Amino acid sequence: MAATLAAGMPLMTKLIAFAAFSAATPLAPFSFDRRAPDEEDVVIDILYCGVCHSDLHTARNEWGRTTYPCVPGHEIVGRVTAVGSSVSRFKAGDLVGVGCMVDSCRQCVNCNDGLEQYCISGMTGTYNGKDRKGGATTYGGYSSAITVSDRYVVRIPYGMDPAAAAPLLCAGITTYSPLRHWKAGPGKTVGIVGLGGLGHMGVKLAHAMGAKVVLFTTSPDKIADGKALGADTVVISTDADAMAAYANSLDLIINTVAVSHDLNVYLRLLKRDGTMVLVGAPEHPHGPLQIFTLLMGRRSLAGSGIGGMPETQEMLDFCAEHGLTADIEVIPIQQINTAYARMLKGEVKYRFVVDMATLQA
Amino acid sequence: MAATLAAGMPLMTKLIAFAAFSAATPLAPFSFDRRAPDEEDVVIDILYCGVCHSDLHTARNEWGRTTYPCVPGHEIVGRVTAVGSSVSRFKAGDLVGVGCMVDSCRQCVNCNDGLEQYCISGMTGTYNGKDRKGGATTYGGYSSAITVSDRYVVRIPYGMDPAAAAPLLCAGITTYSPLRHWKAGPGKTVGIVGLGGLGHMGVKLAHAMGAKVVLFTTSPDKIADGKALGADTVVISTDADAMAAYANSLDLIINTVAVSHDLNVYLRLLKRDGTMVLVGAPEHPHGPLQIFTLLMGRRSLAGSGIGGMPETQEMLDFCAEHGLTADIEVIPIQQINTAYARMLKGEVKYRFVVDMATLQA
Repeated sequence: MAATLAAGMPLMTKLIAFAAFSAATPLAPFSFDRRAPDEEDVVIDILYCGVCHSDLHTARNEWGRTTYPCVPGHEIVGRVTAVGSSVSRFKAGDLVGVGCMVDSCRQCVNCNDGLEQYCISGMTGTYNGKDRKGGATTYGGYSSAITVSDRYVVRIPYGMDPAAAAPLLCAGITTYSPLRHWKAGPGKTVGIVGLGGLGHMGVKLAHAMGAKVVLFTTSPDKIADGKALGADTVVISTDADAMAAYANSLDLIINTVAVSHDLNVYLRLLKRDGTMVLVGAPEHPHGPLQIFTLLMGRRSLAGSGIGGMPETQEMLDFCAEHGLTADIEVIPIQQINTAYARMLKGEVKYRFVVDMATLQA
Repeated sequence: MAATLAAGMPLMTKLIAFAAFSAATPLAPFSFDRRAPDEEDVVIDILYCGVCHSDLHTARNEWGRTTYPCVPGHEIVGRVTAVGSSVSRFKAGDLVGVGCMVDSCRQCVNCNDGLEQYCISGMTGTYNGKDRKGGATTYGGYSSAITVSDRYVVRIPYGMDPAAAAPLLCAGITTYSPLRHWKAGPGKTVGIVGLGGLGHMGVKLAHAMGAKVVLFTTSPDKIADGKALGADTVVISTDADAMAAYANSLDLIINTVAVSHDLNVYLRLLKRDGTMVLVGAPEHPHGPLQIFTLLMGRRSLAGSGIGGMPETQEMLDFCAEHGLTADIEVIPIQQINTAYARMLKGEVKYRFVVDMATLQA
């Protein structure tokens, strides 16, 4: 175990990683330095990193704000190698996680409420963000190590598989947070739209919370999987009659589909006072809303982004208590470009996780 | 006073009214019969009827579902002339109101919750609806009398001006209901978008509930009026700098504008967990939503339609307690077409009310 960090520690130099160097080229090896850790930092050797659709959106500049080179990855599980002098929650040797953010202003109302992802001045993304300490572009989890202020680090519960835990840091918390906020639980019927990385966690979590779960998918070949993951019913969303049978029946819908589609067909399925929560942002806008569908039932369309640090820890503890992790396929980093191609075709059940030991290969 | 109605009462024949006979022609005099009252009915001589934008939308078939002839009007205040044998809440001589609905299924979850406007099988509109008793097209308040089941009749509080009370039955309840549901009150900042019939009631009601009120209007000449009605601040919504100053500041927005516009400029003004409620349905869809604006702040876009019968009575009682009614301009029915033209130009402060005695002129 490394010693406690002192002020004035040196840069972490020559870290190895995979990066996108432009929107149009495949990810490739990259070497870089990270800023020197300070007294509140946790230094983490990365063991596993999940592959999120946002990684691909950002690597290919589909949201238009990418700085290159870009090291994606925000579903990070690793082992602590050193901590700053003021860090009491972690010590070298601990298994920890880092999700989509590594900092925020720490003083606005949302930060003070432990919902740092909604920081008024903007959270610092784990990658493609601007480091509040020094101003450099942040580099994510497709790398050998990372340095993160302790507030933005969570503990992986004892006994949880570290590879299968990685996707919980984004796909897990992104579905857990709205399920909790909108009170999924016994007596509630929850729709999950889409069975990808987020959707499969949504089904597992809503089921574990005690809700009745209705999965909506365009793929008949996902019916058996959906039920095995915890859905009570699977509805093929292109079947208008099957959809009509669910009109006015759902308390809550978590819509994980991050490509443009007709939201009205799902809004109609909400009970009075029901809410559909979008957790993904498509590259192109969704089609127009039928306002009467909102009016006639006091329905809501909401958005939700990941979760705050306290609820991220709560989510991990909930998953440990219920024996939940993600369904994953572990890949070496050298297969990341193939994994992106397969992810776009939906050929993953249900999350790729990179074994970061392969960076050394 | 008339006697209590017995079963088998005759039709109400040769009532006089003003009706639209097609989408393109002005409203004109019309004579018609109403169904015979039954044991639960309240028969009402109409004194005043407010002029709602929905009247114009329907008369001109802008929502595509108008049956002609169409007698608009769903802000009705009148005096009871007779009641059915099972009616105990009203008696001849009472001053009563009828709003946007005259019936519903009375057995679905929403009817059972007293939110009949969200009836699963559809409320029966006061006009251009299909009467659940007999199936005829319903005729509204631009007429001399109306027959309505007692459940859908409310009491006008003692001392309230009957003409100025009429708009409360639609414009009042449409803004009151979402203000209450989303908990406008002390410590909350509420935005009201648009200063028309609905907006002016929204400002008055939100102010009376104790909220801080920010009015958004495109018209600089409405600033003084907005403040007089109860707004703490008036923001000119076309002034981008003024709008930016209100980012992340509002708990709730009631958007009364029923023409297509950019919703994103208002969604950005909501605090985390804030909601913008649309209470009007435009003829053409609103522009595309920026999903990130919903995601980054867990914001909601909701709809709300009028209010249930119990809360309509509650709203009237609240208005009486706070000395509130609508700001109106009383017109004879013969000026209804001119009033429509002026309403479209925004030349009304803030609601036309027809004096139905003029039908006899």
